[in-house]
Amino acid sequence: MESKASAPGKAILFGEHAVVFGQPALAFAVDKRAYVSLKKSSGKKSTIKSTDLNFEASFDLSRGIDILKNQKKGIVNYILGALSLGHDGSPLEIELSMEMPVGAGMGSSAAVTVATLAAAYNLHHKNIDISNLAKKAHEVELMVQGAASPLDTAVSTNGGLVYLDENSEISSHQAYLDNSLILGYTSYRGNTGEMVDSVRKRRERFPQIMDPVIESVGNITRQALKLLSQDNLDKEYLGELMNINQGLLDSMGVNTPELSRMIFNARKYGALGSKITGAGGGGSIIAFCPGKLEEVLHILQKTDSAINADFSKEGVLIHHK
Amino acid sequence: MESKASAPGKAILFGEHAVVFGQPALAFAVDKRAYVSLKKSSGKKSTIKSTDLNFEASFDLSRGIDILKNQKKGIVNYILGALSLGHDGSPLEIELSMEMPVGAGMGSSAAVTVATLAAAYNLHHKNIDISNLAKKAHEVELMVQGAASPLDTAVSTNGGLVYLDENSEISSHQAYLDNSLILGYTSYRGNTGEMVDSVRKRRERFPQIMDPVIESVGNITRQALKLLSQDNLDKEYLGELMNINQGLLDSMGVNTPELSRMIFNARKYGALGSKITGAGGGGSIIAFCPGKLEEVLHILQKTDSAINADFSKEGVLIHHK
Repeated sequence: MESKASAPGKAILFGEHAVVFGQPALAFAVDKRAYVSLKKSSGKKSTIKSTDLNFEASFDLSRGIDILKNQKKGIVNYILGALSLGHDGSPLEIELSMEMPVGAGMGSSAAVTVATLAAAYNLHHKNIDISNLAKKAHEVELMVQGAASPLDTAVSTNGGLVYLDENSEISSHQAYLDNSLILGYTSYRGNTGEMVDSVRKRRERFPQIMDPVIESVGNITRQALKLLSQDNLDKEYLGELMNINQGLLDSMGVNTPELSRMIFNARKYGALGSKITGAGGGGSIIAFCPGKLEEVLHILQKTDSAINADFSKEGVLIHHK
Repeated sequence: MESKASAPGKAILFGEHAVVFGQPALAFAVDKRAYVSLKKSSGKKSTIKSTDLNFEASFDLSRGIDILKNQKKGIVNYILGALSLGHDGSPLEIELSMEMPVGAGMGSSAAVTVATLAAAYNLHHKNIDISNLAKKAHEVELMVQGAASPLDTAVSTNGGLVYLDENSEISSHQAYLDNSLILGYTSYRGNTGEMVDSVRKRRERFPQIMDPVIESVGNITRQALKLLSQDNLDKEYLGELMNINQGLLDSMGVNTPELSRMIFNARKYGALGSKITGAGGGGSIIAFCPGKLEEVLHILQKTDSAINADFSKEGVLIHHK
């Protein structure tokens, strides 16, 4: 029997870093997904294969979570972590296919985790409860990474627009963002932990200066949620909020020359707003460019990588044959 | 008889734009000056000549301030404006020499105005009272530009470090910044009025978001004044304040790709801090690079213009033969 599931990647629209200091964050599911298929194997070992990511490996799943100890960090660990919760340890043929880059701030690990858990539950004919799935996926991220925001796994499970409020409560929302979003990413991947740490240090050194900045980002995120909930989206307003948030991220010290170049190029070629998405220090930018997708994609791809990564309502899905 | 005077240009260290909303600003005189010499002429008309700026013209000074009406905006207008207050209208041979670029945010117009007024007072054997000179020079800037901050003329008159406080009161301070400052400027000059206007509009559209930003800039400027008044300057701290202020200027919308490139290049080659100085939208950056002057000058000059423009205690000076 084969079981296949998929889950979307995410992009943070507003609030990265400020979220660490109790401010809200707003993220959305993108139409780029991770697909995981599980098939009971007749062999003794489990195999894992990904053509997209160009790797193949084999494991003894019956060793459970201990297997992680000897692994290099990587996307495979999320699959193994998820299977330690959702599978009985019997041999599997695992296939992973990815529509998004790994480690570029698009929540690839959360997408893979959610898809693996869903595929495992389905394989074992377990009922899939969405809020329980998100919770379990967050547990896997904690297990693999040590620390993790519940936002990524919530987006990958729920799809749509997800708001993490001041009390770390998650809510899902509809949004009217169609065919207007681009993610650009540099070849250099920032280290999220280091970035979070450096922002915390800057805040400790300059509380009177950084606290108003963090509050301002919080106000941006709250206004953006209201704005996006309206039928008739004021696109210029949304773009300007992104541009302001970008400056505030720069003031936190997480901007780089490469990210800045992409951000300015996107605006020059028609983006109404562009900003770092995720922790910065490398990684990705998001550009909001209604009517200018081709132009902005073209200019970003000249120096870096960029994809059209639109808002997606779909969260986790089981793919029946 | 010939009378010659000079006055320094300035650089804003902290607080540009926030100053419009009642926050303080901190600027310093640089070791680049404007020199004005006045000589009674035997001809009927007055002549003005500047080898540095490559121009020559003639005027009827007896027409007083009305002469400005037919002039294009330019540095000459400040000379004519100053002479309408400090001179009797009789024909002069005027020479102007400039050690700084015009219109690059270095306060060239204030320097020229202060130097012209001082040269005129000296020509007429009038006593030069520093605080009255600064006041008159500000009047000239108002006359020529319509609006002007008293900061530039105060710096050009007093020299040193000048603080414009929350009540628009000016005070002079000592600072311990030696041989560590670079000004970089793009060929494109921002329009100060337009920039001030666009920041005001952004603040009107997003008061809850921009007010904390403006407050944060105010806190930076207040902390910087305290910091610079200490014997034993914490250079890293000063640099970090500059970098934070830069992000906040970006969030106000006055950053450009060219300024950003210079700012990141300066940091990459050793600057402890770098930021826009002045209104932005083009114009200048300031980089604080103790021990790395040559490296930073070199990299900035590859794509743009840059000069070593150090802190100067000297304000307006009369040059006796």
